[in-house]
Amino acid sequence: MKIVKVLGITALATTIALGSSLVEKVKNSGIKPIPSSNYELLKLIDDPKDPITNAKVELGKKLYFDPRLSRSNLISCNTCHNLALGGADNVGAAIGHKWTANPSHLNSPTVYNSVFFDAQFWDGRSAHLADQAQGPVQAGPEMAAPKDLVEDRVNSIPEYINEFKTAYGDNVKINFERITSTIAIFEKTLVTPSRFDQFLHGNENALSKEEKKGLNTFIDKGCASCHNGIALGGTLQPFEIAAKYKFAEVGDFKGNAQGMVKTPTLRNITETAPYFHNGAIWSLKEAVKEMGSTQLGIKINDKDADDIVTFLKALTGEKPTIVYPVLPASTDKTPKPSFD
Amino acid sequence: MKIVKVLGITALATTIALGSSLVEKVKNSGIKPIPSSNYELLKLIDDPKDPITNAKVELGKKLYFDPRLSRSNLISCNTCHNLALGGADNVGAAIGHKWTANPSHLNSPTVYNSVFFDAQFWDGRSAHLADQAQGPVQAGPEMAAPKDLVEDRVNSIPEYINEFKTAYGDNVKINFERITSTIAIFEKTLVTPSRFDQFLHGNENALSKEEKKGLNTFIDKGCASCHNGIALGGTLQPFEIAAKYKFAEVGDFKGNAQGMVKTPTLRNITETAPYFHNGAIWSLKEAVKEMGSTQLGIKINDKDADDIVTFLKALTGEKPTIVYPVLPASTDKTPKPSFD
Repeated sequence: MKIVKVLGITALATTIALGSSLVEKVKNSGIKPIPSSNYELLKLIDDPKDPITNAKVELGKKLYFDPRLSRSNLISCNTCHNLALGGADNVGAAIGHKWTANPSHLNSPTVYNSVFFDAQFWDGRSAHLADQAQGPVQAGPEMAAPKDLVEDRVNSIPEYINEFKTAYGDNVKINFERITSTIAIFEKTLVTPSRFDQFLHGNENALSKEEKKGLNTFIDKGCASCHNGIALGGTLQPFEIAAKYKFAEVGDFKGNAQGMVKTPTLRNITETAPYFHNGAIWSLKEAVKEMGSTQLGIKINDKDADDIVTFLKALTGEKPTIVYPVLPASTDKTPKPSFD
Repeated sequence: MKIVKVLGITALATTIALGSSLVEKVKNSGIKPIPSSNYELLKLIDDPKDPITNAKVELGKKLYFDPRLSRSNLISCNTCHNLALGGADNVGAAIGHKWTANPSHLNSPTVYNSVFFDAQFWDGRSAHLADQAQGPVQAGPEMAAPKDLVEDRVNSIPEYINEFKTAYGDNVKINFERITSTIAIFEKTLVTPSRFDQFLHGNENALSKEEKKGLNTFIDKGCASCHNGIALGGTLQPFEIAAKYKFAEVGDFKGNAQGMVKTPTLRNITETAPYFHNGAIWSLKEAVKEMGSTQLGIKINDKDADDIVTFLKALTGEKPTIVYPVLPASTDKTPKPSFD
């Protein structure tokens, strides 16, 4: 009797959830929409100490696309966080300077909507994008450029100097920290609202019946216990793989000192295969089932996984229109690339 | 008396040339402007058998920027012919798959204005861009993707299939040749008119007095004997380095079977350092002097080289506005990257 009753309630809850109260259920799970107004969005992402301005965004965009920020002149931020490819690179382990794979076999996370993350990097060691951007530029297996090389390259190009002055005033010091924080300001604008946000803002028809069903399953299975917030990800969560795998089997990355891992965003997830910290799985359906097994300790059957994937597709957002920059030319003073 | 007279005539000719007849002098040297009307331009670059259409250009742009056309998913046409960097890559020898430098130490030529070249590649072995585009995609040290891999990747992505149908009709066969010829149609649009063209079209004030002086020196020194046509380059010319260097010293590239080499375009030349087939020289002034010595067998002094460089800067053109594409996502059927 008790079991039947519980099942009855569950069935009822599911039916209700497919109506308008599904929005409430989603919000109760901790998931939030991207604000629908620029005013609200700016309030959320802007830093009054270094406010977003058009001059900084345009300059940050140039720096983001400029491969001269790497030791070799060959790798830009956009190489691994490609704005044409969902903000990632479509390979397993990131590959950088000298064709070196990430030593922990870590996969490049998307830059889109990363402004909404609580923490950056797979182990969450950076609190914000300006700090994050300093890492890959210097890392040996990524862009491999020491701070002073980056500073010397940028300061050797008069047009860059002028743009920094326009953005920050004539007394700006164009150092590594300023260069990377300017990149971060561009990255803050890489926000991709989707039909899911319209749904949460009250447009019930923004999602199809099938997508709502998938969303309901997504919540019921517990996916939102990690994939919550605006990004449906971006928070540190217990990294449960030790129960199922030996770390050495999956790239030897163990999360942070507390065994926590940054949950990837699910926005634009259909565009950012392969999945997981090590890019081990290419199929989104398989990834959903694997997460059920590894993180939630449940079996997600084929039908439920299909439903969840149907919902996840509705998280594909509208990308900002980005005019590809024309970068200022190097000068005779610009330090040359090296490939060793 | 005779010598004095000759010098007198030369001096007079120079004075006249700095006036309006400099345009005639330039045209007599074989240099031509980019047509000022789209009508004339299209007549020049369009192929009635495969006409330029907006649908093909937009699709070609996506393919041009798509790193999934490479074996590794990491290298696109734009990696070496970067539209943000003068259409080239700012390194000496091109570097491709597995961080492999071009075996002949060849430098990536710019894609801008390449539609005006008589021949493509440093040895001119391709007659046109559609043929050229097939080379680097397949070449082991470049994108390293066999034809069938490229075809399988593109045909695994329904949005690409739809775009090919829109561009070419429902019966289109999406094979390697069609993929690369579509890239070439995008490349045909990469034309960069400059102040020099305005000058040749009759706007005498489009060039400064100093630029006109440099242009005059450029013609007088004989630079236009190779750097002519619309591109100020792009024709096959005798490769004279054997008189000054051993081939092994300069990358071991010997030109084509007849010892001819494709002259690089001088348009946007300030943006495409390093110079020469082997990217050996970074300074434009030094490059001018080296060409005088190697190709023309004359000594160009510092002052004349400075004047010529002043003129060359006026060849920097207006780049087309390119919205960075959002590429269609891979599917479960899309062949995976490999890195070996």
